[in-house]
Amino acid sequence: MSLDVEKIRADFPILSTTVNGRPLVYLDNGASAQKPQVVIDAISRAYSGEYANVHRGLHHLSNLATENYERVRGIIARFLGAAHEDEVIFTSGSTEGINLVSYGWAAPRLQAGDEILLSVLEHHANIVPWHFLRERQGVVLRWVEPEPDGSLPAEKMLAAVGPRTRLIAVTHMSNVTGTVVDVGAIARGTDVPVLVDGSQAAVHMPVDLAALGCDFYCITGHKLYGPSGSGAIWISHERQAEMRPFLGGGDMIHEVTRDSVSYAAPPLRFEAGTPGIVNQIGLGVALEYMMGLGMANIAAYERELCDYAAQRLAGLNWLNIQGNAPGKGAIFSMSMSGAHAHDISTILDKRGIAVRAGTHCAMPLMQFYGLPATARASFAMYNTRSEVDALVHALEFCRELFA
Amino acid sequence: MSLDVEKIRADFPILSTTVNGRPLVYLDNGASAQKPQVVIDAISRAYSGEYANVHRGLHHLSNLATENYERVRGIIARFLGAAHEDEVIFTSGSTEGINLVSYGWAAPRLQAGDEILLSVLEHHANIVPWHFLRERQGVVLRWVEPEPDGSLPAEKMLAAVGPRTRLIAVTHMSNVTGTVVDVGAIARGTDVPVLVDGSQAAVHMPVDLAALGCDFYCITGHKLYGPSGSGAIWISHERQAEMRPFLGGGDMIHEVTRDSVSYAAPPLRFEAGTPGIVNQIGLGVALEYMMGLGMANIAAYERELCDYAAQRLAGLNWLNIQGNAPGKGAIFSMSMSGAHAHDISTILDKRGIAVRAGTHCAMPLMQFYGLPATARASFAMYNTRSEVDALVHALEFCRELFA
Repeated sequence: MSLDVEKIRADFPILSTTVNGRPLVYLDNGASAQKPQVVIDAISRAYSGEYANVHRGLHHLSNLATENYERVRGIIARFLGAAHEDEVIFTSGSTEGINLVSYGWAAPRLQAGDEILLSVLEHHANIVPWHFLRERQGVVLRWVEPEPDGSLPAEKMLAAVGPRTRLIAVTHMSNVTGTVVDVGAIARGTDVPVLVDGSQAAVHMPVDLAALGCDFYCITGHKLYGPSGSGAIWISHERQAEMRPFLGGGDMIHEVTRDSVSYAAPPLRFEAGTPGIVNQIGLGVALEYMMGLGMANIAAYERELCDYAAQRLAGLNWLNIQGNAPGKGAIFSMSMSGAHAHDISTILDKRGIAVRAGTHCAMPLMQFYGLPATARASFAMYNTRSEVDALVHALEFCRELFA
Repeated sequence: MSLDVEKIRADFPILSTTVNGRPLVYLDNGASAQKPQVVIDAISRAYSGEYANVHRGLHHLSNLATENYERVRGIIARFLGAAHEDEVIFTSGSTEGINLVSYGWAAPRLQAGDEILLSVLEHHANIVPWHFLRERQGVVLRWVEPEPDGSLPAEKMLAAVGPRTRLIAVTHMSNVTGTVVDVGAIARGTDVPVLVDGSQAAVHMPVDLAALGCDFYCITGHKLYGPSGSGAIWISHERQAEMRPFLGGGDMIHEVTRDSVSYAAPPLRFEAGTPGIVNQIGLGVALEYMMGLGMANIAAYERELCDYAAQRLAGLNWLNIQGNAPGKGAIFSMSMSGAHAHDISTILDKRGIAVRAGTHCAMPLMQFYGLPATARASFAMYNTRSEVDALVHALEFCRELFA
């Protein structure tokens, strides 16, 4: 079964709008994805008729909101192939999820001289929380470079594991090069706990946590066609048991007195305060939408689209693409001599094409490529071959301007 | 000018729904407020036609989203009477805001034996982050009890300040008793930094930070008729300069290398990752809605409603109200001998009346009153005298059942 992309496009109202008088060609999905009408409607419905605070109420609306909200935990578990719902912790996105691991698991356990192994592909969300531990408690960051084509062999990561490696923090898919990392091979190849940043990967391919064998896996709702401020991190029971609470407040406690505090069982222990109730409800609808299409179908469609884009862009011999690892996701970071990335983005925007320019929150990778910035076209399940063509034509126009 | 409450009610779609066959009487506003149609519409509009990630884009939608999002900083500054927009830091709510202060300001500064002064009125969000510092680094929590009527004189807080007091953390309005604390008198009466939890107060009365003179003031969007996962904390420039970053990730950095990290200037320094873009846009609309009605008008209307409710409830001589401080907000925690709070809530729910039962995330205050739980009716600007009457009738029905 393949995707009916025109039908999908019709589900996303923003895709039929125009920008600068041209039909919108939205190729900034790596930064954030657009939302289908079912998600927008679910948010409106929740606020219009089913809203109250969760967990603490006994009245109808509170029970209803709690049911709608807690139901999403199971949807996320299903989406990720997780065996246990209570290993799913709601977050406001990957950044909060990784900080939860840094503050709640790593900070109280790692000593000065202990090492965290990172790849140079990482997003700042999977770098800065570890720099905090370097700055504050002398943890050492060890880095593994990708190959020149952007690929990152699992063996290369595993070869860098040393006796003081306490954590491996690695992306499942680079947001700059689209590189897919075999995180399962890494996790199965070592006893060191592995945190996987699934922010990009989970959007574009099926994730099966039972098979991956990692310890932490985070996703971020706004990239998954879901609302702002939604997300989750899956944490194995074993690692949860080693963690102390991170954010303190309501809902995560068992008992509070003036002199003492005891904590609720996970997952609530790690979810303080009134959560992003309606955001998570919307995320549940977004994930059900994706699962309804079928993640394997989405991946297959995007594979074709990626191959087509790679082939078309390869025809532009004045354009450099950073990263062309086999099996990469449909993310293309581009540079061309004589044109700044920001200029490319601005010129494309005049033609209605949204791409991002900058360092993509991945400065170490930019440094690896020796570039101050790139222009990035990142595709999603609703993009088409004709949008690839539009991108190519607009890049050719850029080339003419700057040649 | 007074409020046209029927007109306001018509703006909130959920208020015209029924629960258990009765018109909804929503008196659980202390837990979370309902949303006006303008907020729901703003969310739909943002996702349907104006959505992209913020700050990092150069294309039309990203610029538009950034403009809509950053504009809210100024709205919040105006709402709080803050002089400087860059003293407003976006958060997902008060819990994140207070944890930011605990982790970013207090943790690196306070030594074992240093003291934090709290009132017994506090919500767990303003307790547990300080318990963390007690557990982890030997900080001492000092507590000031309210008077039996729930009031908390500023002099009583100030009298408890000692040579090792490093922070005063106090609510502006109790979510259990409605007590309004003169936080301005506290802040003006000492050089010790003062954190004010404005989660309840900012919903019900004008806030003028310029006059209050505190150091930290947090608000939470979902109680302010705004979306899930929205909020902010105001932090003075002086205190910001003393803080280290809290959450690490994108947007809050200046430069990242493998060996180093430097940080963006505030407020971005304290806002890591993709923020709750559309949530904050919705909060801006909610605050503009409130300011359009006039915070003084809202306060005056709720004052009348509170007085009426207090008078009607005082007529039930078998009902105990926890807290009746002069000038209190329209929040009534109730207990009656022979009936559990949870039973009261359940029986009221059968009549369409939503009240909360439990400890209201304020266990130390429950312990002060010697109660395991209360049933709490908390009013908002859209509630009416006839809803007070409905509450009274339903309580009388409870009394008959349990007498």
